[in-house]
Amino acid sequence: MLIRAFVPAHITAFFAPLRKEDPLQTGSVGAGVNLSKGTNVFASIETGTLERHIHVAFNGEPVKRNEAIISYSVAEEIVPEDFIGEVEIWQYFDFPNGYGFGNSAGGALGTALSLGYAFGGTWLGMARIAHRYEVMHGGGLGDVVAQLTGGIEVRVKAGGPGIGVTDNLFFEDYRVLVVPLGPLHTREVLDGDAIKSIEVEGRRALEGLLREPSPERMMLLARNFAEKTGLLGGELLELARELDRVISSPSSMIMLGKGLFALVRGEELGRAKNLLADLDVPYDVADIYTERPRVGRWVG
Amino acid sequence: MLIRAFVPAHITAFFAPLRKEDPLQTGSVGAGVNLSKGTNVFASIETGTLERHIHVAFNGEPVKRNEAIISYSVAEEIVPEDFIGEVEIWQYFDFPNGYGFGNSAGGALGTALSLGYAFGGTWLGMARIAHRYEVMHGGGLGDVVAQLTGGIEVRVKAGGPGIGVTDNLFFEDYRVLVVPLGPLHTREVLDGDAIKSIEVEGRRALEGLLREPSPERMMLLARNFAEKTGLLGGELLELARELDRVISSPSSMIMLGKGLFALVRGEELGRAKNLLADLDVPYDVADIYTERPRVGRWVG
Repeated sequence: MLIRAFVPAHITAFFAPLRKEDPLQTGSVGAGVNLSKGTNVFASIETGTLERHIHVAFNGEPVKRNEAIISYSVAEEIVPEDFIGEVEIWQYFDFPNGYGFGNSAGGALGTALSLGYAFGGTWLGMARIAHRYEVMHGGGLGDVVAQLTGGIEVRVKAGGPGIGVTDNLFFEDYRVLVVPLGPLHTREVLDGDAIKSIEVEGRRALEGLLREPSPERMMLLARNFAEKTGLLGGELLELARELDRVISSPSSMIMLGKGLFALVRGEELGRAKNLLADLDVPYDVADIYTERPRVGRWVG
Repeated sequence: MLIRAFVPAHITAFFAPLRKEDPLQTGSVGAGVNLSKGTNVFASIETGTLERHIHVAFNGEPVKRNEAIISYSVAEEIVPEDFIGEVEIWQYFDFPNGYGFGNSAGGALGTALSLGYAFGGTWLGMARIAHRYEVMHGGGLGDVVAQLTGGIEVRVKAGGPGIGVTDNLFFEDYRVLVVPLGPLHTREVLDGDAIKSIEVEGRRALEGLLREPSPERMMLLARNFAEKTGLLGGELLELARELDRVISSPSSMIMLGKGLFALVRGEELGRAKNLLADLDVPYDVADIYTERPRVGRWVG
C-alpha cells in the first residue's frame, strides 16, 4: 500500500515562543504564510517480511535514525508494535532543509497523516504526535499547527493541535516571493540572547496585527520584528531594502532561515524577479496554500 | 464590489448539545459530514446611496428581517455603522431550508466571511459572529464549527470557533447519498422529550467513535443514535432498512431533517440509485468537501 501526503511549506513572519513542561501545551503565537510548495511524503507499507522495519528517506536518500529523529519517532509511535512488515517513509522537499520552510514539521506531519491513514487514528491524534516530537527534538514550535491551518495564519493562542488557537487573514491575489539564501539553526536562536527580545516583540506584533488584521500590516509588523530583534541585519537587510524599492508591502526575513519573503501581486512580481536576476540572487515563487494538508492512497 | 463565499452543506450524524449562558461557549459534540454542495453567498456592496441599507435574499427572493434574522443580525454587526451604501446578501442553497443541511449556518457563515473580506476582520472573528447568532436565534449549535472544519468531522469539545475543538476522520473514496424528504424543526426537537436521550446517546456515540475512529463506525453509531433516541422511526426507518440491503455501511437519519444519508462507494451507488428510483423517492449525491469554506472577490 502506498499513501501520499502533502503538507505546505510554512514561513513564519513573526513569533513568540511559549515553553511548558508538556509539549502539547508548548507552541508559539505569531503569524505566517503557507505555500503551494512544500513536503510530499510517500509512505510505503508492505507486509511479508519477518520483522518490523521502519525506514526514512529525504529526497530519495535513506537517512539514519539520528539524522531524522523526529520522523522516526513519529513513525515508531504510530506503526503498531505488533506490525510485521516494511514501512518506508519517502520525504521530498521543495525547499532545502534548515532554510525556514517548516520542512521538519512537514515531514513529521506528512508521516503522521500517512501512517494514521494506513493504520487508523484521527487527524488530531496524528497531528499531536507530530507536534510533540517537533517540540521535544527542537524542530519548530508552531509549524505543525500553522500547516494544519493553511492560508495566511495567525496563531492567537500558543499550543499544539487542539490546544493552540489559530486564525486566518483574508487576502486577495497575492503570491509569495521567496529568497532562500541559507540555513539558520532554530535551536541556537531560541537558546540565544535574542530570545527575550523575540518574546516581547513577537507579542507586540501579534497585538498590532489583531488590531488591524491584513496581510499588508502583517508584513510591516514582521519587518519591524525582524529588525528590532536583531535577527535581520547586514547584507540580508540591504537586500530587503533593495527589494522594497520595487514592491509595495515590505519584504521580511524568513523565521528562521537566512532568507527573505514578500507578498507580491500584479507587476510587482516581474519587477522583483528582474531585480533578483540582476543581483544574481536565487529566488522562487509560490501561491498561498489555503487548503488543509492532503492525504490519500497513491495510485500513480 | 461583489464577494462570493461558498460554505459546504453539513449533515450531522449524531450530536449532544451543550448549552451555556455565553453563546460562544455553547455548541455541540458529535460528528458529521461536509458536502461539495451547499450555500453560495454573493455579497454586493455599493456606495453612492444616501443611507445604509442591508438586504438579504434567499434563492433570488428578498426576505424580510424576521424571516432571516440570523443573516440580518450578522450583516448588521459586521457592516460598519458609518457605512453609507447598499449591502445586498444573495444566498443560494443547493438543498432546501429546514431539511438538516446546515443552510442557516451556511448563510450566516457565508455572509460573515464575505462581509469580513469586504470590510475587514479575520476568519475567526467573523465565524464567531456567525456562530453567536446561530445559537441565539435557534439555528444550529455545531454547524458553523463543523463547516469550518470540513471533511468528515468530529466535534470533540463543544463550543464556538476558537473554543470548540474538532477532529477529522480519514476516509477513502466515499460519496454521500442523501434522501431529503422534508423539514424538521431543530428547536422543537431540542426543546422536546427526546433531549435527555439525545444528550446521553450523543456522548456515548462520540466515545464509541473515538475508540474506533472510522467512517464506517460513525455510520453504525449514527444509526444506533437515531433509533435509540426515537428520532428515526416509522416509514423513514423502513426506508433506511430497504436502503441498507444494497449498501455496506448503514444509512442513517439527517440530524435534524426528515431524511436519510449514507456513505457509498463503487457499485453501491448505482444499486442505491436504482432502488430509490423504483421507490419513487427523491435523492441527491455529493462528494465529501474537505477544504475550508471559500471566499473571494467575484469576477464574472
